[in-house]
Amino acid sequence: MTGREGGADIGPIGNSPVVILVRPQLADNIGAVARAMANGGLFHLRLVAPRDGWPQEKAWRNSSGADRILDGLSLHETVADAVADLHHVFATCPRPRHIVKPVLTARGAAAELREICGRGLRAGLLFGPERAGLDNDDMAEADALVRYPLNPAFMSLNLAQAVMVLAYEWWTAAEATPPRALMTNETRVATKAELENFLSHLTAELDACGFLRNLPKRPGMVRNIRHLFARGEVTEQELRTLHGVVTELARGRRQLGRDEADRAG
Amino acid sequence: MTGREGGADIGPIGNSPVVILVRPQLADNIGAVARAMANGGLFHLRLVAPRDGWPQEKAWRNSSGADRILDGLSLHETVADAVADLHHVFATCPRPRHIVKPVLTARGAAAELREICGRGLRAGLLFGPERAGLDNDDMAEADALVRYPLNPAFMSLNLAQAVMVLAYEWWTAAEATPPRALMTNETRVATKAELENFLSHLTAELDACGFLRNLPKRPGMVRNIRHLFARGEVTEQELRTLHGVVTELARGRRQLGRDEADRAG
Repeated sequence: MTGREGGADIGPIGNSPVVILVRPQLADNIGAVARAMANGGLFHLRLVAPRDGWPQEKAWRNSSGADRILDGLSLHETVADAVADLHHVFATCPRPRHIVKPVLTARGAAAELREICGRGLRAGLLFGPERAGLDNDDMAEADALVRYPLNPAFMSLNLAQAVMVLAYEWWTAAEATPPRALMTNETRVATKAELENFLSHLTAELDACGFLRNLPKRPGMVRNIRHLFARGEVTEQELRTLHGVVTELARGRRQLGRDEADRAG
Repeated sequence: MTGREGGADIGPIGNSPVVILVRPQLADNIGAVARAMANGGLFHLRLVAPRDGWPQEKAWRNSSGADRILDGLSLHETVADAVADLHHVFATCPRPRHIVKPVLTARGAAAELREICGRGLRAGLLFGPERAGLDNDDMAEADALVRYPLNPAFMSLNLAQAVMVLAYEWWTAAEATPPRALMTNETRVATKAELENFLSHLTAELDACGFLRNLPKRPGMVRNIRHLFARGEVTEQELRTLHGVVTELARGRRQLGRDEADRAG
């Protein structure tokens, strides 16, 4: 909780899908749903006939500051009423049977929702009650069903987790973050010349101390060291540290050599 | 809860990444983490210095039957001890600063984890304590950081939700479910000939009742009706229903016509 009036900032609210909880049972879950929605950039919440009535203080306590979503939600008696102003409705359903309907993955649904909302149409997502899920009449209100690819041997998905997965996919569908990138912060990746400069320094000291004295094996040993450093995407700052490490280790060795010569003399 | 000894079945356990909760605070969350892991096909859990000690009955109560994961977890005093037998370690971290490290998206991490585990190596995922997250020493134990693309204006992600997103991506990384598919269950999509047969029936009845009597507009009206049915991926069973609907509506109309003729006569 932030202590701010109306809870934490949740960012700009664009045309995003409405989350519709159908006959939710636990106020704790409604709060956790609001939190997951804020995480994934979904801001519009509707409740259809919540079991214990509304409002419930517990929901706010469990929303980690996503108060604005709870403050702004609307209450409906029926699913038909909750979806009346929407153009497209998807229903989450783990195991649909005896029904003819398009089935989307969570990722597929997110891509279609982005496209729908991008055209200025209003979309909604139905989530069923914790114990039983959506019934056949609820599903008949939907254009398509959303079935998450998850472990079929363990389908017991918490309501807020179900919302989290779709909210995450909704956010990710508009993201272009590369799957892997080196975060360098104050420094930058070293150039090949900088790396070469360090490797020359290292090799010279390894020659000086005798580590590379086996001449037939020397080229292979040098190559192996090169491979290791090439693999690690070394930064310019790390190279400076490594220069220091090699210099200090070599100086210590030379000092030790002088001390031993002194003692022998 | 299933009431079965040891909880619910959670499916076959292959070489999957180890989830490592570092100094977790709430037993409720540990239970919810186990449930999310079972959802996404992660089965190996380790705890580093849980705040309230271990075991905690609350965790089992909150795991929805993922008992086997809790029963089989191991307890460690330090992160170094918890990762000692692993080959690769990723750490989840929402806002890393002043650190040089590869950063993966959750999807990127899942793809790499599949690849690592597919080579028979052991991987682990570090998750920090609820309030503070991983500290700098924890992160130094990791090969790479995982940062989820999520709403930067609302970063308060519940621990079990964080595990859920990665477990979901882990499962999805090995899935080939198409993003959209018509689920037809007992029936099948109609062939073009079956659809054509119905459209001829409908058009004939619409001609008979006078709906298409405006001859200059007739081709466009027929085309519009064709477009609607072509868009909907009609099934063979639905076409039989539609044949019946048209036949019955036309029969009703004809009967009405006869009744009116009777009354007039």
